[in-house]
Amino acid sequence: MTALIDSIGIVGAGHIGSSIARAVRQRGLARSIAIADASDTVCERVAALDLADAVSTDAAIVGDCDAVILCVPVGSMGAVGEIVGPRLKPGAILTDVGSVKAAVIAALAPHVPAHAHLVPAHPVAGLEHSGPDSGLAELFVNRWCIITPPPDADKAAVAKIEALWRGMGSNVEVMTPEHHDRVLAITSHVPHLIAYNIVGTASDLEKVTEKEVIKFSAGGFRDFTRIAASDPVMWRDIFLNNREAVLEMLGRFNEDLAALQRAIRWGDGEALLKLFTRTRAIRRGVIEAGQANAVPPVAIGPQADPGKPVAARRRAKA
Amino acid sequence: MTALIDSIGIVGAGHIGSSIARAVRQRGLARSIAIADASDTVCERVAALDLADAVSTDAAIVGDCDAVILCVPVGSMGAVGEIVGPRLKPGAILTDVGSVKAAVIAALAPHVPAHAHLVPAHPVAGLEHSGPDSGLAELFVNRWCIITPPPDADKAAVAKIEALWRGMGSNVEVMTPEHHDRVLAITSHVPHLIAYNIVGTASDLEKVTEKEVIKFSAGGFRDFTRIAASDPVMWRDIFLNNREAVLEMLGRFNEDLAALQRAIRWGDGEALLKLFTRTRAIRRGVIEAGQANAVPPVAIGPQADPGKPVAARRRAKA
Repeated sequence: MTALIDSIGIVGAGHIGSSIARAVRQRGLARSIAIADASDTVCERVAALDLADAVSTDAAIVGDCDAVILCVPVGSMGAVGEIVGPRLKPGAILTDVGSVKAAVIAALAPHVPAHAHLVPAHPVAGLEHSGPDSGLAELFVNRWCIITPPPDADKAAVAKIEALWRGMGSNVEVMTPEHHDRVLAITSHVPHLIAYNIVGTASDLEKVTEKEVIKFSAGGFRDFTRIAASDPVMWRDIFLNNREAVLEMLGRFNEDLAALQRAIRWGDGEALLKLFTRTRAIRRGVIEAGQANAVPPVAIGPQADPGKPVAARRRAKA
Repeated sequence: MTALIDSIGIVGAGHIGSSIARAVRQRGLARSIAIADASDTVCERVAALDLADAVSTDAAIVGDCDAVILCVPVGSMGAVGEIVGPRLKPGAILTDVGSVKAAVIAALAPHVPAHAHLVPAHPVAGLEHSGPDSGLAELFVNRWCIITPPPDADKAAVAKIEALWRGMGSNVEVMTPEHHDRVLAITSHVPHLIAYNIVGTASDLEKVTEKEVIKFSAGGFRDFTRIAASDPVMWRDIFLNNREAVLEMLGRFNEDLAALQRAIRWGDGEALLKLFTRTRAIRRGVIEAGQANAVPPVAIGPQADPGKPVAARRRAKA
């Protein structure tokens, strides 16, 4: 099997970066992988897990790769681009996995030389886990990767990135960065925000203890705690960098919630029933689109703990 | 093995009622089970699944049981209590599984004769699925059941209901109905409300299509669609019957969300990071309390569809 790309560089070996490394290796999509991560500890784990042919805390290590994938928080893209961009060789492709696209393109574009290509992408996949140990080679299978090429993007470079994601098992869709940011605001960013928010609210009550909130979380709260266990820096950066779209969608959410609140106060059962019946259809759509499961169930540990160091996680009882 | 209770009557053979029937049978907790359900179709399924010794659309069938468990929507408790209550024999126990307790007690108490006992309970368990086919004998294992006995409750009757739930694998906690309603408002009712709400908001947008929302739901939205697929009538009744506590908790949620919204607008990354870090600890608590998984993974089908009739669900591809 011929590799799709000769050498791939990955900057940031967290949940997504390390999943890409695993998928690329397992599927033979590149001949060599170089990984850079600012953290010594992460680099040690990358080496121990044998995820790459070369590992360094210096992002310059990926400079001569044919394709470089930035898997760092959205707010760090500019700084990493500043190191990597000027080192890109002629024909090299710079891509990323950021959950916000317009802001990332604005941060990266100035650093990409004319002889290289910027092809931003966003795999809509991932669990709440963090770190190189949490990566899964199957994470992108049957998930969508959205590519948001600039208007003047090199067609061959876009095709290569598309082939890379298809090679990892993803479906690919192309759209503008602005539309991406709007779609993700409602399907991902606002959901995360309200999950973070309710977990915060619940832990601040006086009349209900945190212990009770945890004990009786099986009534629905549990699912929100899972989402609210996602990486804090990654999510801070998403909200700061997709501000307009998030605030717009949040405005709609608040408007609708006020109507629901009013329906409850005035005992309007019909309005409640109407909404609750309508939302079931969306769930059916999600199931029919094959998007209802997080990842192939076999790939997830029974109760992996997102916040603890790896060793502690391995000791944790199911 | 001696059965704990001679005869158990269940009114309402939905997800919870049919799970109780399965658990009681499997664990030999009663010598006989009678099931009543207002729906002909449900009664046919109960018979076909062999969940009970007697089945009827007439709730009077459970009138001479030693313990009767009402598993109907909270808003139907009063009407069912009116039929069942006067038929209860001396020493019989009337209990329920309603997600609201103060309103249910108010609805049931007038129908319970002095020679019988009212012992309200609420198993904090359940999936988003509905109907007799969706029941699971293991649904209550390692989940909490909250019992809210009236101040003058018969101690032996309370002990029997506690033993019944422990017999099905649950842990049991006793609290006042008012405290229960407050705890559940934040751990279950408001989470469901905001899940229903965001799924509604997402399907009403003009610039993002419903198809896109479904396609890219893996970014977090997916989990909300699952919760928002819960039984519409059950949830309408919960909100109408736990109005005060839900509105109180919703007020707190809104206040906190306004602060978050403001932090995003003004680029206050520190406030965001602080909350997002704090919420991770709650998730760890949920995991440590053994409440992170819905049910033993083996018990759930890969992508069961909550809204479709049983036959269609069986045909659905994973």
